[in-house]
Amino acid sequence: MRLSTLRHACRNLPTPSVHQPRTGVRVFGLAKRSLPLGHSSNSQLLLRAACSISGTTSAEKAPKLGKQTDGPGYENTIRENVQRTKEKMVALQRGHPALKPTLAIIQADEDDRLLEINKKMAGKIGLNITQICLPRECTEDEIIEEVLKLNEDPRVHGVYLHLPPASLTSRVLNTLRPEKDVDGVSDLNVGRLVRGDMSQGFTPPLANAVMELLARHDTPMEGRTVLVVGGEGPLGVALQCLMQRSGMVVLNSRRSSEGLQKQMMQANAVVLLAAGHMDVPPTWLRPGTAVIHCGSALMTEDHGMEMSGVGPLTAALRMRNVVQSSSRWAQGQQYRPWTLRSLKLQPLSPVPSDIEISRAQTPKPVDQLAQEIGLLQEETEAYGRTKAKVRLSLLDRLREQPDGKYVLVAGITPTPLGEGKSTVVIGLVQALSAHLKLNSFACLRQPSQGPTFGVKGGAAGGGYAQVIPMEEFNLHLTGDIHAITAANNLVAAAIDARMLHEATQTDKALYSRLVPSVNGVRRFSPIQIARLCRLGISEIDPSALTPQEVSSFVRLDLDPAKVTWQRVVDTNDRFLRKITVGQASTEKGHVRETQFDIAVASEIMAILALADGLGDMKTRLGRMVVGSSRSGQPITAEDLGVSGALAVLMKDAIKPTLMQTLEGSPVFVHAGPFANIAHGNSSVLADKLALKLVGEDGFVVTEAGFGADIGMEKFFNIKCRASGLRPNIVVLVATVRALKMHGGGPSVSAGSPLPREYIDENLSLVTKGCSSNLRKQIQIAHLFGVPVVVALNVFKTDTQAEIDLVCQMAKESGASDAVPCHHWARGGRGSVELAQAVKQASSQPSHFQFLYSQETPIVEKIRMIAQKVYGADDIELSPEAQAKIDYYNQQGYGKLPICMAKTHLSLSHLPEKKGTPTGFTLPIRDIRASIGAGFIYPLVGTMSTMPGLPTRPCFYDIDLDPVTEEITGLF
Amino acid sequence: MRLSTLRHACRNLPTPSVHQPRTGVRVFGLAKRSLPLGHSSNSQLLLRAACSISGTTSAEKAPKLGKQTDGPGYENTIRENVQRTKEKMVALQRGHPALKPTLAIIQADEDDRLLEINKKMAGKIGLNITQICLPRECTEDEIIEEVLKLNEDPRVHGVYLHLPPASLTSRVLNTLRPEKDVDGVSDLNVGRLVRGDMSQGFTPPLANAVMELLARHDTPMEGRTVLVVGGEGPLGVALQCLMQRSGMVVLNSRRSSEGLQKQMMQANAVVLLAAGHMDVPPTWLRPGTAVIHCGSALMTEDHGMEMSGVGPLTAALRMRNVVQSSSRWAQGQQYRPWTLRSLKLQPLSPVPSDIEISRAQTPKPVDQLAQEIGLLQEETEAYGRTKAKVRLSLLDRLREQPDGKYVLVAGITPTPLGEGKSTVVIGLVQALSAHLKLNSFACLRQPSQGPTFGVKGGAAGGGYAQVIPMEEFNLHLTGDIHAITAANNLVAAAIDARMLHEATQTDKALYSRLVPSVNGVRRFSPIQIARLCRLGISEIDPSALTPQEVSSFVRLDLDPAKVTWQRVVDTNDRFLRKITVGQASTEKGHVRETQFDIAVASEIMAILALADGLGDMKTRLGRMVVGSSRSGQPITAEDLGVSGALAVLMKDAIKPTLMQTLEGSPVFVHAGPFANIAHGNSSVLADKLALKLVGEDGFVVTEAGFGADIGMEKFFNIKCRASGLRPNIVVLVATVRALKMHGGGPSVSAGSPLPREYIDENLSLVTKGCSSNLRKQIQIAHLFGVPVVVALNVFKTDTQAEIDLVCQMAKESGASDAVPCHHWARGGRGSVELAQAVKQASSQPSHFQFLYSQETPIVEKIRMIAQKVYGADDIELSPEAQAKIDYYNQQGYGKLPICMAKTHLSLSHLPEKKGTPTGFTLPIRDIRASIGAGFIYPLVGTMSTMPGLPTRPCFYDIDLDPVTEEITGLF
Repeated sequence: MRLSTLRHACRNLPTPSVHQPRTGVRVFGLAKRSLPLGHSSNSQLLLRAACSISGTTSAEKAPKLGKQTDGPGYENTIRENVQRTKEKMVALQRGHPALKPTLAIIQADEDDRLLEINKKMAGKIGLNITQICLPRECTEDEIIEEVLKLNEDPRVHGVYLHLPPASLTSRVLNTLRPEKDVDGVSDLNVGRLVRGDMSQGFTPPLANAVMELLARHDTPMEGRTVLVVGGEGPLGVALQCLMQRSGMVVLNSRRSSEGLQKQMMQANAVVLLAAGHMDVPPTWLRPGTAVIHCGSALMTEDHGMEMSGVGPLTAALRMRNVVQSSSRWAQGQQYRPWTLRSLKLQPLSPVPSDIEISRAQTPKPVDQLAQEIGLLQEETEAYGRTKAKVRLSLLDRLREQPDGKYVLVAGITPTPLGEGKSTVVIGLVQALSAHLKLNSFACLRQPSQGPTFGVKGGAAGGGYAQVIPMEEFNLHLTGDIHAITAANNLVAAAIDARMLHEATQTDKALYSRLVPSVNGVRRFSPIQIARLCRLGISEIDPSALTPQEVSSFVRLDLDPAKVTWQRVVDTNDRFLRKITVGQASTEKGHVRETQFDIAVASEIMAILALADGLGDMKTRLGRMVVGSSRSGQPITAEDLGVSGALAVLMKDAIKPTLMQTLEGSPVFVHAGPFANIAHGNSSVLADKLALKLVGEDGFVVTEAGFGADIGMEKFFNIKCRASGLRPNIVVLVATVRALKMHGGGPSVSAGSPLPREYIDENLSLVTKGCSSNLRKQIQIAHLFGVPVVVALNVFKTDTQAEIDLVCQMAKESGASDAVPCHHWARGGRGSVELAQAVKQASSQPSHFQFLYSQETPIVEKIRMIAQKVYGADDIELSPEAQAKIDYYNQQGYGKLPICMAKTHLSLSHLPEKKGTPTGFTLPIRDIRASIGAGFIYPLVGTMSTMPGLPTRPCFYDIDLDPVTEEITGLF
Repeated sequence: MRLSTLRHACRNLPTPSVHQPRTGVRVFGLAKRSLPLGHSSNSQLLLRAACSISGTTSAEKAPKLGKQTDGPGYENTIRENVQRTKEKMVALQRGHPALKPTLAIIQADEDDRLLEINKKMAGKIGLNITQICLPRECTEDEIIEEVLKLNEDPRVHGVYLHLPPASLTSRVLNTLRPEKDVDGVSDLNVGRLVRGDMSQGFTPPLANAVMELLARHDTPMEGRTVLVVGGEGPLGVALQCLMQRSGMVVLNSRRSSEGLQKQMMQANAVVLLAAGHMDVPPTWLRPGTAVIHCGSALMTEDHGMEMSGVGPLTAALRMRNVVQSSSRWAQGQQYRPWTLRSLKLQPLSPVPSDIEISRAQTPKPVDQLAQEIGLLQEETEAYGRTKAKVRLSLLDRLREQPDGKYVLVAGITPTPLGEGKSTVVIGLVQALSAHLKLNSFACLRQPSQGPTFGVKGGAAGGGYAQVIPMEEFNLHLTGDIHAITAANNLVAAAIDARMLHEATQTDKALYSRLVPSVNGVRRFSPIQIARLCRLGISEIDPSALTPQEVSSFVRLDLDPAKVTWQRVVDTNDRFLRKITVGQASTEKGHVRETQFDIAVASEIMAILALADGLGDMKTRLGRMVVGSSRSGQPITAEDLGVSGALAVLMKDAIKPTLMQTLEGSPVFVHAGPFANIAHGNSSVLADKLALKLVGEDGFVVTEAGFGADIGMEKFFNIKCRASGLRPNIVVLVATVRALKMHGGGPSVSAGSPLPREYIDENLSLVTKGCSSNLRKQIQIAHLFGVPVVVALNVFKTDTQAEIDLVCQMAKESGASDAVPCHHWARGGRGSVELAQAVKQASSQPSHFQFLYSQETPIVEKIRMIAQKVYGADDIELSPEAQAKIDYYNQQGYGKLPICMAKTHLSLSHLPEKKGTPTGFTLPIRDIRASIGAGFIYPLVGTMSTMPGLPTRPCFYDIDLDPVTEEITGLF
């Protein structure tokens, strides 16, 4: 039979059984006429010889192809594989209806036969194919560019590089992401296969095909000898690994080896892996020896010949890998259990300075931390080595995942020195993750830079309960506050500029500038159409507005005396508390008194903390009221045309920043609104992301600013209302120091030495403090139906008797538990008892309820807070306050929750009244509103929104070593 | 011979030749008593049997161990390897005297025998060893923590995980950085070996040892059969790969294989790889067969037995890998040739909007770009996916590397519309890198956010010559301007607070606050000691100062009327141009008139642009003069105690930000000082880094703000003086539009339609423009001895005759070359001609010289600039200016260079005078100084340092789609 005839026969026969020579030499796979590699006329001759000889052998000795199936074995092998893969595909799509498993093929030049087989096979299984056709002479860079695009494309689950061998350079192969390398050709995947860890890599389809064929041999191949000819390449090595793992004895030889004939005679099966062709004289083989010829499946060119043999099976197994890859992708999209690695902590005594402790610990690279807590690579954006922004798409990916437990850390009414709530949060999370091995996350506020350089110092925790690196936490972080400053001040600049332009231009001039003719066309921008809507003007053709409409459109008519928007800086700059602006001659006398606030007092910060997505943030930014018109209409940021720009400025700030504690537990730092004129809680989004990430049995611990009467009340009534999240438990932080103060101890102030009462044991003061302020704050939490665990933040002057007394009295006052904690000196190890108490208490049912309904009138809401939370007899409204309430009701703001701006140093409005004050009436001096953030804030007393610098600010001690780049003096 | 006797013999004999059984069965390597893996009493028995039998065979048939050496072969093999490695080590250290090649060993428990051998071998070669001893029962996390530390430790070049097999989990092995994995055990290195790419990985030392031993066999092993028993693991696979590559026929079998005896009989060599022990009855072997037993080298435990055999050779080869790793490390520290991948650009016509063009291109991940241009991983800090800060340590690493060519892009006197210098810079770099395939880097200024939302729009270039993503470039970037704002305003807050505190406190009160007693100790901080030094007080005991000294120490006595420091915001806020601060009652009437500037006008920005390192920046920040005392003494930031804090705030800003052009060429964005009150050039550091990175034949292209008379003059006299860098060539950008204006065309202004003269061909105006302004600007460049190439930035209205005319006249005026460029419409392809001209011209010698010496008196310096550069007849000083000059001379500032604050719209001080004005006297209205930045700036006319917002600012069109996150409206 001449070669061409044989080929013809191949094409027309349904199975390759024609290739079964009667000697028992079976050739799977069919050679091709033209050989791209290793081709010589000699090998062609060999092929021809082999074919013709094989045709002459006797039929009766031909072994069956299939071991257990009755039909034509090879065909069956393919069919079964296709069937199994199809079933997996169906199961996968049942679980993930939106998933469309896709194989991308990068090819040079047109389709060839091998590619057609692959595409047909993909069709049979139901896979999508994306073809990228490069020119035949494409460069390595062009291929790499396409590979990189496919790497990043979430719709592609596998990439098949159907390219000439010369194009498959090491750089190309290793650019391909291993998780999409369904041919298993990258170094990493080859290594995985060799090391035997197939949980991640892929077995090369051709190697798999050979194994499938060997498995179908009549006699089990285990213990038998398989000769691999030409297996020096990675494919050959992979194949030999698989064979060895199946217990075969592998003999490897080169095609040019002198002893080849002898080796063939020993083999129970021969696999020809050479990229060119080679044929085997049947006389070289023992009867019953299977010969698997892989040459054709290694080639990419087509010269009009029929393709059969290992080609289709290889294609089927490639598709199996694509389905596997898609399945892994789908699996990877699911919730991932954590593999958190804790950092060892060896606390020193005495406890060194915060910056020294922070510097002594090497943080995990943030990308590694992200991976440990189940974030996908594409969900993070690194900012240096230790900080990363986390994308909100996570919420969508894990939307089906149940939330973890939600723990709020609040405090009793503090001394002016602070009682260490942040350190409790961090210590608790360190204890939960590093010691109890429970998933847990701390969600903290980003601190202003003002106090860092002013008096208070940083806010990254302290001692052995810190966020590291603390200098990154305390300084620019990822620029969120800077973005807020820029956005806030753009609004301010827009307000004053607009007032100036309106004051100096006619309606017509304003209109022609606001709606200019561009290339002869006048058009309203989308933001201007939004304003027209609010004005009740439905006309969107600029030339069709009536003069009256033009006038109301162009004139915001802001009343300079009623502008409520202030500029901000993130610096303690007391001289900006009251200023006059517009004094340059260019502003034509339009001077105005105004002020700068510290940046975190910006309404934009409160919005960042309450927004639950980019769309929601943008809406809130647009509806911020910046003042009112002379006719009393509120004017919004959208009226100024600036809301789109604000969203652009804030687009990165909306993503929470991931950092870590000293013991390597994850921390989100996100938003830090003021706790008086705003609600003092870190962001809703950070909590939501963290609750998904920790998983159902994990814990998210966050903090409410000030005492529980303020921070916690706002956390519940404002933040939980906005987020829809429900807290499981409150950790109430107390100190012996603060309790003694509430028990009647002398006053405590920053900078003065502590009176003796606070240093020596004094059980009487402690008792009084517990039965007043502590008891009341526990009751406040219970008002909302949430269980309380008291955390006594132990100082070194506290005696055991004092500690025991506090814990006992706390429990008597209704706390589920009360434990001392020592995180400052000992890290997470010092808070293990607290962590256990929190774990225990959080398994109790929580019956959370709001204190008031949104529908309740403003005055009643304020009264309920004053009476039920603060213990006031009643409230007293100033005339200004009453007028504002009327105005807000008229504007439809009556349903907003209330954000009390009250001192945190007493339950009452009088800072000096400690314990549980009674018999007082809460005066409401004035009322303001943050319409964008979505709350009304009654002012009880004067709230400073701009701290000052003392004579010797912190910055005197802050320094940077220019050689080591080490920072000193931060605390 | 009993086993124990044999062992004893081993220990005492210098060579393992005693193990050569006379049958010709040679056993390299010695078994151990206790087997950590696969051990059974059965295998022990086998071992014993084998040993005793091997002792009985005849000696005369024993083949020689060494093929070519005469001495005892095995010993020689080790000795030769040690010797070769030692030589490499010596050569390496000769080239890198500071390099100390170091192997880190992570071990569990105490040293064992194998470890001792390794340490001894390291000692012989001169390698350092770092041992990390973990407890025997250490956890995976503990191991990982140590591995991660070693990964990051630049002093460690190799890591040997000497741990129980159970501890060598996939996670542990793959945490180790492949470049330190000298045992070649990570998946990636296994894959590299299998794929045969050993330019990066490591051959496992044991596999190498076996190959060495086989190579020493009497008969060449090529074509011979080697039986590998127990080679299923990665080590076995690696070994088989090496064998196959050496042309051996490899037969693989399991130790439990039934046919083992038969297989042994076929083998010319047998390698026993099982982790346990196994011995071979000599009757199973053909005479002359070598047996290599690797069991002992796979074990980590020691039970008091002598270790020999493959153990020492493996150790020697491990050390070879460490030296290789160190050598690669040293190599990696050297300059690396680029592997820049260009991004394809398919320009559309008409040219879409800038943001659309930017969005249509997918930037390379910045870490990949960094790698392409030869940055080390540890030299970059990613900020998201498309921006990275580059660490200054690069300058130290490449200090021996010659700089590339330094190209300055300047312009003729522009129209108010701008002539496209930035696009020329970007287009030129796109052409050089993507089309001429020459290394090149663009160094650009970071733009203020003010104009982005105001009138001008962004500054990322335009059309098809842009930096991408343009929104990242134009918005927060990596926060440098925000850091400058924070630092600037901290100084401002410190000034006003200090004046208030001094005004309201006695010397004593101030002193006790400034130098407080902390735990009973009073101490000056380092920054206060610096002030004492300046005051000439050498006493550093706070209690020993005289009242007079205390007074001069505590009182800066700043004159409120002489405070020159202004606050800044990065917003176009015209109402802050003149303000009154301190009007709140808390500031007790200490009101003061002052102003806000736009952030980029801060002296700190000028310092960032001129500093050449962290130390230099800190010094400059400290010496910034913020005003003067009532007695006329300059008061500095250091006097305020704030300079350390400023350095801390600026520690990240000092690192240039890496981005890329539309065609994937690298761009540094760093610093953007004003071009009038400052020098208008991007940073010295970015240029220095880029000049090292591009290599000797590469190009760094940077831009000087305004026309060449201002930007270029300052680039030469101020920036080059500060940096010590010398420009090779100036590219002078001209447009037909500007030339026509200089030729007498009607005035051009933003917002008005262009007069016909600028749209229609007008060769006469072009001729006049060329012979006036263009010629003059070329002459200015020649003043400094630098060759000029004129780049005509072609607009679509330009005719071929106009283009030809400009090019011809430019060359006649002395330009080395003059070419049209079309980058805006065509990208780099449109600037290829310019790139070629620049390449050509930069090979000419440049004879750079400063215009004036620093020693020249201030007035003379000003006069030289006015006369030689601007063409003025003379200068005229106002009395204020003269007084300031006297004051600066008195303060020792007379040697600073001059930074003229003059309009850019004319060579003269009168914006309306186009062409080459003559016959004018330049009036110097006032003179100011930036002592920290290091220049004196004479004011010629009024300079606005705070732009305003027009009636319809850019922000009206800027928007963010909250779903796609796409930005619109930026340009």
